[in-house]
Amino acid sequence: LSDPFNVHDYELLARERLDDNAWEYLRGGAGDETTLRDNIAAFARWKLRPRVLVATDRIDTSTTVLGTPIAAPIVVAPLATQKLFHPDGEAATARAAAAAGTLMVLSSSATMRPAAVAEAAPGAPRWFQVYVFRDRAITQALIDEACANDYGALVLTVDTPILGRREGALRVGFHIPAGLEVAADIFEGLDSSIGWGDLEWLAGHGLPVVLKGVVTAEDAQRAVEHGAAAVVVSNHGGRQLDGVSATIDALPQVVEAIDGRAEVLLDSGVRRGVDVLRALALGARAVLVGRAMAFGLAVAGEPGVRAVLGLLRDEVELGLRLLGCSSPAEVSREHVEWRP
Amino acid sequence: LSDPFNVHDYELLARERLDDNAWEYLRGGAGDETTLRDNIAAFARWKLRPRVLVATDRIDTSTTVLGTPIAAPIVVAPLATQKLFHPDGEAATARAAAAAGTLMVLSSSATMRPAAVAEAAPGAPRWFQVYVFRDRAITQALIDEACANDYGALVLTVDTPILGRREGALRVGFHIPAGLEVAADIFEGLDSSIGWGDLEWLAGHGLPVVLKGVVTAEDAQRAVEHGAAAVVVSNHGGRQLDGVSATIDALPQVVEAIDGRAEVLLDSGVRRGVDVLRALALGARAVLVGRAMAFGLAVAGEPGVRAVLGLLRDEVELGLRLLGCSSPAEVSREHVEWRP
Amino acid sequence: LSDPFNVHDYELLARERLDDNAWEYLRGGAGDETTLRDNIAAFARWKLRPRVLVATDRIDTSTTVLGTPIAAPIVVAPLATQKLFHPDGEAATARAAAAAGTLMVLSSSATMRPAAVAEAAPGAPRWFQVYVFRDRAITQALIDEACANDYGALVLTVDTPILGRREGALRVGFHIPAGLEVAADIFEGLDSSIGWGDLEWLAGHGLPVVLKGVVTAEDAQRAVEHGAAAVVVSNHGGRQLDGVSATIDALPQVVEAIDGRAEVLLDSGVRRGVDVLRALALGARAVLVGRAMAFGLAVAGEPGVRAVLGLLRDEVELGLRLLGCSSPAEVSREHVEWRP
Amino acid sequence: LSDPFNVHDYELLARERLDDNAWEYLRGGAGDETTLRDNIAAFARWKLRPRVLVATDRIDTSTTVLGTPIAAPIVVAPLATQKLFHPDGEAATARAAAAAGTLMVLSSSATMRPAAVAEAAPGAPRWFQVYVFRDRAITQALIDEACANDYGALVLTVDTPILGRREGALRVGFHIPAGLEVAADIFEGLDSSIGWGDLEWLAGHGLPVVLKGVVTAEDAQRAVEHGAAAVVVSNHGGRQLDGVSATIDALPQVVEAIDGRAEVLLDSGVRRGVDVLRALALGARAVLVGRAMAFGLAVAGEPGVRAVLGLLRDEVELGLRLLGCSSPAEVSREHVEWRP
Repeated sequence: LSDPFNVHDYELLARERLDDNAWEYLRGGAGDETTLRDNIAAFARWKLRPRVLVATDRIDTSTTVLGTPIAAPIVVAPLATQKLFHPDGEAATARAAAAAGTLMVLSSSATMRPAAVAEAAPGAPRWFQVYVFRDRAITQALIDEACANDYGALVLTVDTPILGRREGALRVGFHIPAGLEVAADIFEGLDSSIGWGDLEWLAGHGLPVVLKGVVTAEDAQRAVEHGAAAVVVSNHGGRQLDGVSATIDALPQVVEAIDGRAEVLLDSGVRRGVDVLRALALGARAVLVGRAMAFGLAVAGEPGVRAVLGLLRDEVELGLRLLGCSSPAEVSREHVEWRP
Repeated sequence: LSDPFNVHDYELLARERLDDNAWEYLRGGAGDETTLRDNIAAFARWKLRPRVLVATDRIDTSTTVLGTPIAAPIVVAPLATQKLFHPDGEAATARAAAAAGTLMVLSSSATMRPAAVAEAAPGAPRWFQVYVFRDRAITQALIDEACANDYGALVLTVDTPILGRREGALRVGFHIPAGLEVAADIFEGLDSSIGWGDLEWLAGHGLPVVLKGVVTAEDAQRAVEHGAAAVVVSNHGGRQLDGVSATIDALPQVVEAIDGRAEVLLDSGVRRGVDVLRALALGARAVLVGRAMAFGLAVAGEPGVRAVLGLLRDEVELGLRLLGCSSPAEVSREHVEWRP
Repeated sequence: LSDPFNVHDYELLARERLDDNAWEYLRGGAGDETTLRDNIAAFARWKLRPRVLVATDRIDTSTTVLGTPIAAPIVVAPLATQKLFHPDGEAATARAAAAAGTLMVLSSSATMRPAAVAEAAPGAPRWFQVYVFRDRAITQALIDEACANDYGALVLTVDTPILGRREGALRVGFHIPAGLEVAADIFEGLDSSIGWGDLEWLAGHGLPVVLKGVVTAEDAQRAVEHGAAAVVVSNHGGRQLDGVSATIDALPQVVEAIDGRAEVLLDSGVRRGVDVLRALALGARAVLVGRAMAFGLAVAGEPGVRAVLGLLRDEVELGLRLLGCSSPAEVSREHVEWRP
Repeated sequence: LSDPFNVHDYELLARERLDDNAWEYLRGGAGDETTLRDNIAAFARWKLRPRVLVATDRIDTSTTVLGTPIAAPIVVAPLATQKLFHPDGEAATARAAAAAGTLMVLSSSATMRPAAVAEAAPGAPRWFQVYVFRDRAITQALIDEACANDYGALVLTVDTPILGRREGALRVGFHIPAGLEVAADIFEGLDSSIGWGDLEWLAGHGLPVVLKGVVTAEDAQRAVEHGAAAVVVSNHGGRQLDGVSATIDALPQVVEAIDGRAEVLLDSGVRRGVDVLRALALGARAVLVGRAMAFGLAVAGEPGVRAVLGLLRDEVELGLRLLGCSSPAEVSREHVEWRP
């Protein structure tokens, strides 16, 4: 392996650079990792249906999420504790996302405070991911700091009333290395008593609320009823409940239930531009990339993240052209079909 | 491998500790072992559908089977000849089940008599598994001893009119080691002439009758008509007729045919808490674990069984929380969907 | 490997004993061998549905084919050139079939004449397989000899207007070893001009006509219209047209089209008693075993064939008992279901 | 491996003879190569349904494409830069196609000019494949030269508004070796602004227009409306958009939409005569072979291509006979069925 040509290559390079502790945290999933594997495998069962003789000399990969312009339908996912992967941590990611013209979602469990990350990439669009801790003061302080630093939306992770059991990480005795400080520790203190009623409290901060971790039509319907501006179809990268469907398989029921009343995003398993196109075809507005981005971070810090985001954007552009579409908006349900 | 993190780990450790004779008896299945493998693989095709923002701070994993409270929907299956796996045999299992707050089903082919097992865990709930031998006196004596020792139900194994052909065991020349005494030898003397009419005789002992080994709607219907209090959807862990469906695939038709008129349990292939959740979602009240429990027994005797039962209970609790359910009763048909 | 426990074991032993020339002839299939493999794999997708509490203390595996009693629903297929596998050739097979109480179908391409095979097992039931050669005199002479020696039916192989291309055999330079004489050489001279009209000529010999190689509903219907007494659902063990369905998958459409107006048999891929049960459940009256029988022949001559036939008969008996059936006639469409 | 018995053998021999540069160009596909693999695997899921007792002593494998007689339903695909594989390049292929009695489609990106290829096989039928370059003068000059040299149709490749990303070729640093001249370089200069309207311009040259790269019903319908004489169901051998269906899976919708108003051809993944039969059964008039032909070219130049074309023709003849058909026209939709 010399130069990386795709996200898989970045994964191999990241594996070489990280110790077992960081690598297992990044790689692993819950239980038997069936969902972890299926997230990736399921994309291939959705076949693309390209149209020909469509003029595609002018491709525009840009779109918006909740009104925020982004250069491609690829957003940086709220991956926790990024200094595990590179000493520059979330600052590198923030600068790379800004350079790539896209949005970064900062984790509550970051190794940098919201204000510090904002300072690293002033003026760039960013959202803040919220975990609700039993000690609400922790959550409140983080939200307040995010609000004060121009974060544009609050992304409530709803698939984590408690942390999933990631046995690979347990096997290597996963720990936060000495010297790293985590804004809020998800390994303890998550509040599993929160419910739909708590959305009002969150919405009270004046920012749009995004629910991350919705995988059923029933919850999609409820999300809209409770005022969510967007949902992210996510199974937490296969790290929470093993045995859940791949997100690309869950997406259609969520899109149908939402019926245009909120935006739909997707994460978990995206490794290729064609995966992004499949998600668009099934009704997602954009995807979030977590591990793919972190592979780049591990390999080369900010330039590494920039390279991965650029590579995926280029794959999306190439894919749009070959699919016969000039923009994400032109990708429709008729551009994909399911085959076993 | 150091500490066991899941049932698979206990399996590897058990393999190390057992000789070929005991191991093949425990591991093997009938014929080409397609059912043995499919029992496990089929669970993964039933995808969980978690619901979010449900308060799950108070999870209660307990339930009842035939009115008997158990700490989790996991019962100890009637595995034969347990002194093959550990010198403490069924006594260890009985004490562990009691400590774990659950029910043990004692095999007719145990290496301890019903009275002795009862004595090992006084006051604990237990059922007695019945094989009908051509020499009915053997069967009658065992049933009488069970009745006299507070066994709460009779579990008639109906998938074994004759023993299946387990070629792995044949290859290693399986035998009961010198010094072990089996209450009743299933390797000869089973009565393949019994029929539905014989249920009256069994029910005449005053205990509820459970039919173990029902895998079709037709037999489920008949079981109810003949007064069974419960059925166990089981293919004997793939040890009887190779080519039968995985039990999780057979469960829906049995539940539909029973239509609430009896309780439905399931065994064969359960290795994970999420497998238990799938069975609950498809209408089972609880599952039975045989091999999983025996892995623990082989590894460490009573504490080993306790550890496996505790681990599975913990996985069920975690799974309930992530599924958005606070108790087994809340897990419904809408929590699962089939995907190829 | 010590003693053989199943047909797979006999296959391994046969491989050890045969040279490449004989082995490739026996093992191989046409083209990419997809049908060869699928014949075996497809059985496992048809799941058995056992019924319980059926008295099965008296199992009778016997049945009839075209009125001829056989001890089990397993007939010896018309495998060519059996002296390739053992010096006793077809005589050994004939004696073993007689000893096993079943019927042997002798190939037109045998290494012994019909009269000689009849003499080897006087009084035993036998059918004669017919290839039609361009030189009809060859065919006529064989049929006349069969009629004169009490063969009870003529089995016309209809899937071989020309020999399939078996590349494994080509690779080893397959040849009939010096010293072996073949009654009629299928490697040249087959007549691909025969049609349905020729059945009248064949039927004119006064024996029932069986068509071997029917795999579609359309041909099954025509077979009945032209007076066939039975059809064999066969793809010639995957040796003719690669890409054809497994026979167990083709069986249902043939049975439906025949609708009881002729008997239906099946071959290709049978390795287990449960495969026989699946064929019975889907409407076959019996199966033919070719390679399985030849494995036994290669291993030990007549006793080897006897052992394989006995083993399969025992597996059928065990399977019937576990399925809850006392005879082949009790196995019905409700004893099997298809699962991907 | 000694003599090649099938296309797979030619592939292995070609691999031995080519350097990495040429081999990766020939072998590789786009992205994760899922379409590359699926093209081949999908054929096996379409099962052939042979009919028996049909007189097939006189097989005629010949057919026509757009009125041009060909000896078998196998046409030479427009593979680029054939001097990469053998010094005689397209001239060898042209002579071999002529000898085999079939049609060659010459690539715009050939290593010989249209006139030179015509001169190599005077009088033989040939079509010319068109890429539209931004510099239309290049395209026009090639078309004019083709028209002046008796090319009988213009085959517009419509799946390549830009070249797909073939990472294997990138990894080996693919380049056109010094000394080779390419008529028109597809690695730059393709015009992605062309649309359906441009077909009139192409049709204005007086030759029938064939659209290569149609894989949806929608585009098939449009092709007919815009006057295409034929379409080729193709995904460019998996080299353009990874994630598209196998062509054999896309064929039925194209045939249905065309509804007899144009001819339908197919390429991508054909390795066997039975693959050709499947395509015919699903409504294709003929197939194109690119890689298979190039394996022969690499192994032995003109005789190698002749051998591969002869081998495939023989496989088609054998397959027709075993399918119960005497000509390509007799192969119908009822000769194939889909099975997972």
